[in-house]
Amino acid sequence: MFEQLGLIGCGLMGGSFALALKRAGLVKRVVGYSKSPSTTERARQMGVIDVEAPSALLAVSGADIVLLAVPVAATEATFKAIRHLVTKDMLLMDVGSTKRDVIDSARRVLREQVGSFVPCHPVAGKEVSGVEHADPDLYLGKQVILTPIDKTDPAHVENAVKVWEGLQCKVVKMAPEAHDSAFAAISHLPHLIAFALINGIVTQKQGQEFLSLAGPGFRDFTRIAASEPKMWRDILLANRQELLQQSKVFQETLAAMEKMIENGDAEGLEALIEQASHSRAHWRMASARKS
Amino acid sequence: MFEQLGLIGCGLMGGSFALALKRAGLVKRVVGYSKSPSTTERARQMGVIDVEAPSALLAVSGADIVLLAVPVAATEATFKAIRHLVTKDMLLMDVGSTKRDVIDSARRVLREQVGSFVPCHPVAGKEVSGVEHADPDLYLGKQVILTPIDKTDPAHVENAVKVWEGLQCKVVKMAPEAHDSAFAAISHLPHLIAFALINGIVTQKQGQEFLSLAGPGFRDFTRIAASEPKMWRDILLANRQELLQQSKVFQETLAAMEKMIENGDAEGLEALIEQASHSRAHWRMASARKS
Repeated sequence: MFEQLGLIGCGLMGGSFALALKRAGLVKRVVGYSKSPSTTERARQMGVIDVEAPSALLAVSGADIVLLAVPVAATEATFKAIRHLVTKDMLLMDVGSTKRDVIDSARRVLREQVGSFVPCHPVAGKEVSGVEHADPDLYLGKQVILTPIDKTDPAHVENAVKVWEGLQCKVVKMAPEAHDSAFAAISHLPHLIAFALINGIVTQKQGQEFLSLAGPGFRDFTRIAASEPKMWRDILLANRQELLQQSKVFQETLAAMEKMIENGDAEGLEALIEQASHSRAHWRMASARKS
Repeated sequence: MFEQLGLIGCGLMGGSFALALKRAGLVKRVVGYSKSPSTTERARQMGVIDVEAPSALLAVSGADIVLLAVPVAATEATFKAIRHLVTKDMLLMDVGSTKRDVIDSARRVLREQVGSFVPCHPVAGKEVSGVEHADPDLYLGKQVILTPIDKTDPAHVENAVKVWEGLQCKVVKMAPEAHDSAFAAISHLPHLIAFALINGIVTQKQGQEFLSLAGPGFRDFTRIAASEPKMWRDILLANRQELLQQSKVFQETLAAMEKMIENGDAEGLEALIEQASHSRAHWRMASARKS
């Protein structure tokens, strides 16, 4: 049980965390700060936070748990803004979709206090953003990846596990590098592909006519293309090395299938489709709850 | 109102058509044939068809409406099997996802009776196949593309429109070439990409670990990768020219985005993501019904 959550970033991710933590009875008070004062005010009006802080630093002041829920590209500047009030006893977490860049910033800026920081990636989200969409169920049953480093205080890692499990999440620990490779493959690359597919269509002369004919398969395949541009710009850039590596693997696989199509190699093509179809049909999304 | 539907292929697409046509009161009797006798028997037991035909030719005998619901690669052989009983007065339709290859087969095989054939593509389906999944609602509210040619009898086109509209579909007419370009872009390429993405992941050493972390975005993006291998092998091969052309456009768009990622061009990247996100967020799936 915590006394005070310092919430930096009162949008979808941060706001949902505050609501979930309060509902679970894990915190008494939430002090929130957002870059835009109107967001902070709205968060208070909605009961997402209890007290508005005029700066990130003041949101941290007096907190025993702090969540950074800012775009990954704003992480380093946020660490700089708060570092003077980060203490050994404070549990500091983030929610970023990339981990190596966030950890590099934490090392550079927090220095001897880096042990307080437990890097987190809750695998949850929506295509909409903003505090209006904050939802205490956003994290329910979802996976949360923790990527602690050597210097991370083991007691804080343990606390972080308790917090997320208290929100009924499934906690997985892994190395930051492994995290970034995995999410390049299963999340960042699919987003990049979906963006490129849509752009390739709309820039063709008959693009709008094509789109008017599309059905449910297209709808689901391209759902992630509607994601928030600034957030995804930052993620794709932050994890560029792993992303480009995964894209290379994908393009080689695509080229091999195209070669079979070109050559009319029905048998080879069927075997590859069968492999994909079988793998996907047997895949099940991990969840903290059986459903 | 028709007297007798000759159904060739009693699987998901054909079986659903028979059920929908009967429910709408548009046919008195359904005579069905499937390549596998056990499928035909099962279709009769389920009430999808009324009479089992021992051959495609006998399914056509006495019918005033005929639906070919066979894999696109089996279309030409099916036309050959039935051509002696195709008459001027009979409405003959198919449900194939590609149209130029089907029309080429029809011209070659049906010759002077080609006027009876109205090429159709109902934009509907499921990731499962077989008569067990036949569903009278499968076509409800969906788009159906008709691609008549010069030789198609206009009276049959009119009848085909009435049939599909009678099943509450939205009918769109277009040239076969335009159809095949459009579906290469919005359906065949997304399937090929989804297959290649899954294969690229599962062939990596940590592929299974990657998959275990994937969330709802991945689930929706890859749903179509679970599709039926033989059916999709045939579609990708049948429309190879348009598919490879659309894949080229996609790969060029992807390469341009990758170049920006490599160069850290945040502004250019954001503009392209914004274009995709805006286009997708404003897209609405066409439907015969407002929902």
